[in-house]
Amino acid sequence: EERLKRFAGLVYRTFWDVGREDPRRVIHAFKVGLSLTLVSMLYLLEPLFNNVGQNAIWAVMTVVVVLEFTAGATLCKGLNRGLGTIMAGSLAFFIEFVANKSDHLFRAIFIAFAVLLIGTSATYIRFFPYIKKNYDYGVVIFLLTFNLITVSSYRVNDVLHIAQQRLYTIAIGCGICLLMSLLVFPHWSGEDLHNSTVSKLEGLANSIEACVQQYFSDSKSESEEDNLSDDPIYKEILDSKSEDEALALYASWEPRASRYCYQFPWKQYVKVGAVLRHFGYTVVALHGCLQTEIQTPKAVRALFKDPCFRLAAEVSKVLRELASSIKNRRHCSPSILSDNLHEALQDLDTALKSQPRLFLNPTLDNHHPAPPNFLTLATSANNDFKNSSTIASRNFAIPSFKTDSSALLEWKNKRDQKTAMATEALTPKDKEGGGDRKMLRPTLSKIAITSLEFAEALPFAAFASLLVETVARLDRVIEEVEELGRIAQFKEFKAGDDIV
Amino acid sequence: EERLKRFAGLVYRTFWDVGREDPRRVIHAFKVGLSLTLVSMLYLLEPLFNNVGQNAIWAVMTVVVVLEFTAGATLCKGLNRGLGTIMAGSLAFFIEFVANKSDHLFRAIFIAFAVLLIGTSATYIRFFPYIKKNYDYGVVIFLLTFNLITVSSYRVNDVLHIAQQRLYTIAIGCGICLLMSLLVFPHWSGEDLHNSTVSKLEGLANSIEACVQQYFSDSKSESEEDNLSDDPIYKEILDSKSEDEALALYASWEPRASRYCYQFPWKQYVKVGAVLRHFGYTVVALHGCLQTEIQTPKAVRALFKDPCFRLAAEVSKVLRELASSIKNRRHCSPSILSDNLHEALQDLDTALKSQPRLFLNPTLDNHHPAPPNFLTLATSANNDFKNSSTIASRNFAIPSFKTDSSALLEWKNKRDQKTAMATEALTPKDKEGGGDRKMLRPTLSKIAITSLEFAEALPFAAFASLLVETVARLDRVIEEVEELGRIAQFKEFKAGDDIV
Repeated sequence: EERLKRFAGLVYRTFWDVGREDPRRVIHAFKVGLSLTLVSMLYLLEPLFNNVGQNAIWAVMTVVVVLEFTAGATLCKGLNRGLGTIMAGSLAFFIEFVANKSDHLFRAIFIAFAVLLIGTSATYIRFFPYIKKNYDYGVVIFLLTFNLITVSSYRVNDVLHIAQQRLYTIAIGCGICLLMSLLVFPHWSGEDLHNSTVSKLEGLANSIEACVQQYFSDSKSESEEDNLSDDPIYKEILDSKSEDEALALYASWEPRASRYCYQFPWKQYVKVGAVLRHFGYTVVALHGCLQTEIQTPKAVRALFKDPCFRLAAEVSKVLRELASSIKNRRHCSPSILSDNLHEALQDLDTALKSQPRLFLNPTLDNHHPAPPNFLTLATSANNDFKNSSTIASRNFAIPSFKTDSSALLEWKNKRDQKTAMATEALTPKDKEGGGDRKMLRPTLSKIAITSLEFAEALPFAAFASLLVETVARLDRVIEEVEELGRIAQFKEFKAGDDIV
Repeated sequence: EERLKRFAGLVYRTFWDVGREDPRRVIHAFKVGLSLTLVSMLYLLEPLFNNVGQNAIWAVMTVVVVLEFTAGATLCKGLNRGLGTIMAGSLAFFIEFVANKSDHLFRAIFIAFAVLLIGTSATYIRFFPYIKKNYDYGVVIFLLTFNLITVSSYRVNDVLHIAQQRLYTIAIGCGICLLMSLLVFPHWSGEDLHNSTVSKLEGLANSIEACVQQYFSDSKSESEEDNLSDDPIYKEILDSKSEDEALALYASWEPRASRYCYQFPWKQYVKVGAVLRHFGYTVVALHGCLQTEIQTPKAVRALFKDPCFRLAAEVSKVLRELASSIKNRRHCSPSILSDNLHEALQDLDTALKSQPRLFLNPTLDNHHPAPPNFLTLATSANNDFKNSSTIASRNFAIPSFKTDSSALLEWKNKRDQKTAMATEALTPKDKEGGGDRKMLRPTLSKIAITSLEFAEALPFAAFASLLVETVARLDRVIEEVEELGRIAQFKEFKAGDDIV
């Protein structure tokens, strides 16, 4: 009973969450219910039923299948359905016309052959990329209608009359769907696309800041390294391609064009999405620096904390300004790429220059008289961060005293222990095989990497380089967003608009 | 007429390409045609028609809608359809039972209310993530059937009989679909998933090699920098999430379990896919190094060409071995992480150590007596590559002679020219606004980056670091593939299997 209670609680919570996440879902559900009730009236009200008769079920079917969440999707499906029905009807009557002239047996064979041929070719056509993208549903409806008419024409005499009535009821169904989706609390795909673009820009801004914050934070929260399943915001952006394209496809069907601009620039939104994904790849790589196996010691990183923070903050600021520009449908601030960004870059440059020996390997510097190396740098920096970094620097100093072979040996022992534990859990049959394999195949990569000395400095170089790279890619993003503003005829920028 | 001819040619080519790309499509198309013909027999053959009557159209409808490309998808849809129909039928009869007791008017109101309520809640339930993923189609069918039965029960007396016959014909339709998809040339989602995993591994191996090749190639083929639209193999891998999950979902419905193993390990395939995507992010970042605005001079890169090539080759070799292990359903070679990879890493390390001053900025080295810098390094290296590199080294030397301000000035002039050209093309109304904005907002980022000095060495550090990072992530891939081998009970590795 306890479990039943928990299950009920879970359902209840899901129920609320789904609605709160997007209240338009509740409205959409009501719209469907209402449309179905309206269409049921064809059956329930005497005078209406006398006109349409049993064919009213086709109206019900149309409403269930065609009414979608956004106006664009409904239009797309409705028009596909209409087109498919009409084309199938025409073809079916042509075949009926040909078959009618012959005798009963020949007619049956002819119909069966036509069904085979049309069924095969229509299914094959659905694999064409262009058809699949735009008219998949239309072809299904075509196939359905064609078969229904052709097959039933064999037994019924007045096929034309039935087809006509059916077409009427389908038209009624489509009409109700369009009315509901276009006039009663309409949800536009175009608007969804617009909002998702804004939230993507904001998401990227947040994740860059979070990334830099985490990189320089002292706490060891990297234990969640192996939860691949949690998808941060930028992974959503990387996966957004198909969703974006679907929204843009539906948006291209929507008629509202002239409310905000002469033509809904869905193509440009797709372009902005592509550029953002391109930008996102750099952010992913940046985030990858947090999860890498080899880490530059915290104390060394700390030397570059401020300029990195500043650069990240500037990049985020630009992204937020772009987001607010799209959100408010105005051109972006002319000062969007202000000197601040330039200065932040220069700051980082200066910081890197001031530590020229960062990338110099101490063990090799025998022809320079005692150059300051990693460790001394870190210790001198420690004066600023007394508590945490001294421990950190000691921590990272230890592994470098180990030789390659001793580290390898230690790792091998560890691995053997693990293997032994693992094999105990296995069934006897697996034991020899599994154990053997593990012993034979040393996963050297981890140990190999951590024992290499150059590896300590490289990750930070990669981090800095990727951070600089974001600035370069930012330029492309700005270009595309400005192009969007031009096409969609956003309003001019006014002073004071940029107070985000 | 010329255009018509070209259009016909295009259609013809598409027709062949679709078939050649995956010949199973042709088979599937024939299967659909055949099933439709079979189901039409219910109408065309006298004795069969006498049994099922007009309700035969429901069998036709079922076949059109349920028969999908793979066995898993057909099963999933067929069972959803069956489940939805049965549940809707039960509920409709319950409502019919309640409504039957009252008078005509009250009954109509009751039915309308029930339609509204069920329609609204069923549509709302479709937004639940769990339902949406597994039972979306079932809920649509539920809604459809419920409405058809409830509404038509108002006018027809013998609803139970009609419903029974309809259920029979739907069962016949489902039966034909299952027969066709499970027994006649079946296509398994599980196999698709298997093959796509193999080709992903191979694709990653190829793209890593291609990436390194391109990075060290002398030809300037980077002019295609701004074609975001071309999606290399690894971008397909990044976008593969939804497709993988759909295939895994369908594979989970498939019954063939015990042909190769006790249970089709679709969950593990999804995990391998996730790890491969994680691996892919590094490859994308590596590829990003090719497109970056700031490039480390070719002559400097050339110093590290061989160890980078070797490391990439080793990583690719491991990926190919994993691919062939999955392909042949055998455990992977115990020597998969051989000393070769370790040696390749060490090689790169040695190469980096041998050029310790790579990351040292020459302009700052005033306390070391004339240390060899970038340029001298490059020139000494030039002895090996006489033709191409001397030009390259001269090329990269020139920009560094420019001061920040002169470069900025030059860039500004360029920009102004571009703006003037752009504004001429615009309508007069846009002219002041557009021109103004361009003048006010200097896109400093590009010039700012290229004029910074530190930037020249960093990109290579990033490249090398990312290359090392791939090795670290390779370990996770190997782990998951081995886990897959364990779950799916691949056969043991035999010497000689690894000759790829």
